[in-house]
Amino acid sequence: MSDLVRPNVSHPDSEWEASLLTSILNIVHAPYGDFTAIADLATASSDPETLDLLVTKLAHHPQGKTAFEQRPRLGTIDLHQLKNLPDGTLGQRYAAHMLQNQLKPLEVSPADSDATFFGTHITETHDLWHVVTGCDTTMLGELQLQAFCVAQLEVSRFWLALLTKNLLKSAVYDIQSATQYMDAIAKGWLMGRTAKPLFGTPWPTLWETPLDQVRAALNVVVP
Amino acid sequence: MSDLVRPNVSHPDSEWEASLLTSILNIVHAPYGDFTAIADLATASSDPETLDLLVTKLAHHPQGKTAFEQRPRLGTIDLHQLKNLPDGTLGQRYAAHMLQNQLKPLEVSPADSDATFFGTHITETHDLWHVVTGCDTTMLGELQLQAFCVAQLEVSRFWLALLTKNLLKSAVYDIQSATQYMDAIAKGWLMGRTAKPLFGTPWPTLWETPLDQVRAALNVVVP
Repeated sequence: MSDLVRPNVSHPDSEWEASLLTSILNIVHAPYGDFTAIADLATASSDPETLDLLVTKLAHHPQGKTAFEQRPRLGTIDLHQLKNLPDGTLGQRYAAHMLQNQLKPLEVSPADSDATFFGTHITETHDLWHVVTGCDTTMLGELQLQAFCVAQLEVSRFWLALLTKNLLKSAVYDIQSATQYMDAIAKGWLMGRTAKPLFGTPWPTLWETPLDQVRAALNVVVP
Repeated sequence: MSDLVRPNVSHPDSEWEASLLTSILNIVHAPYGDFTAIADLATASSDPETLDLLVTKLAHHPQGKTAFEQRPRLGTIDLHQLKNLPDGTLGQRYAAHMLQNQLKPLEVSPADSDATFFGTHITETHDLWHVVTGCDTTMLGELQLQAFCVAQLEVSRFWLALLTKNLLKSAVYDIQSATQYMDAIAKGWLMGRTAKPLFGTPWPTLWETPLDQVRAALNVVVP
């Protein structure tokens, strides 16, 4: 019961800390999938100092370093063309995921700095992370992927805030889902800690590679 | 990025849901170990309906059923006497934990209903849960135990709220601790899912049993 931990530290909220807390609360009240609330959270959780730290950490890995140097983009995607690739290839599985869930590749702004490239790359490759990790788009799949992202990105306020928001909703509105939520989080967390970094993967070179091979190369273990 | 999940459900906050959210926010702003904020959270998170569900779930297990029938209390504890038990016994390890951390056995109200017995038993045996799980009283030890409690109690708004509050603090104020926090949570969660129920364990009969044997009997695997 204690929660007795550190010397007492008072937190005089800076403006952005207060606005991040407000965004998390707003998203607790927003319906699931409210893109405006998510976009507000993304903005509120992007302080320059943490973004710099994120970039530095990701660039420690050679693949991340190359990605920041070359800023590769996913490019225009023709889902109907990818759908016709052989069964089980990354491209075919990605197209099937997108079409089944009625998703379109996200259009994001050009990347003219490391920080904007980070955001752009994570946004436009997000659905690929779903496919590679085997996380579906149910609440539990999203939670698993959120924990995977926290594990892979290490210092992402956005993904931790999103995960926390969902636990907060469970504690207040839906306690009977707690076990399922926590199971999904633990699963995604362990998967993300075990996998090699997905950030900076040259996805467009892998469309024709079997998904199993892509997972094995990234050490993503999908039961 | 999607967080697209369920049909949109709006949550017209009931009074207690709103007060639980407020308590969680208050505790985000409170220093660690602020007992008033924790007590407020305990009150706000104790709705009768969920307490009933908790009791029902715990009573499914024979040990839990017996505990609700007999409402055993820990009784008066003499830490200096327990300290002199043979090294490695539960009593000796419990006394060492309490004395090292300058903790006193918590005094709690008598239990005259299943719901109050639940609160009383969890409160007065909490330090024993620390000892049996090997969770120390650092932030990471507390987090690990919070996740263990969420796993064991299944529908405890209080423990999930406490865990969530700590993740919220990390997202807003201390993102560099996220990995350590999540590691601790995953560890406690898996431990709590694997262990037999600790609730209702007749602790006073086990003071002279070696801690290793107690852990083995409860299937608590401490690395």
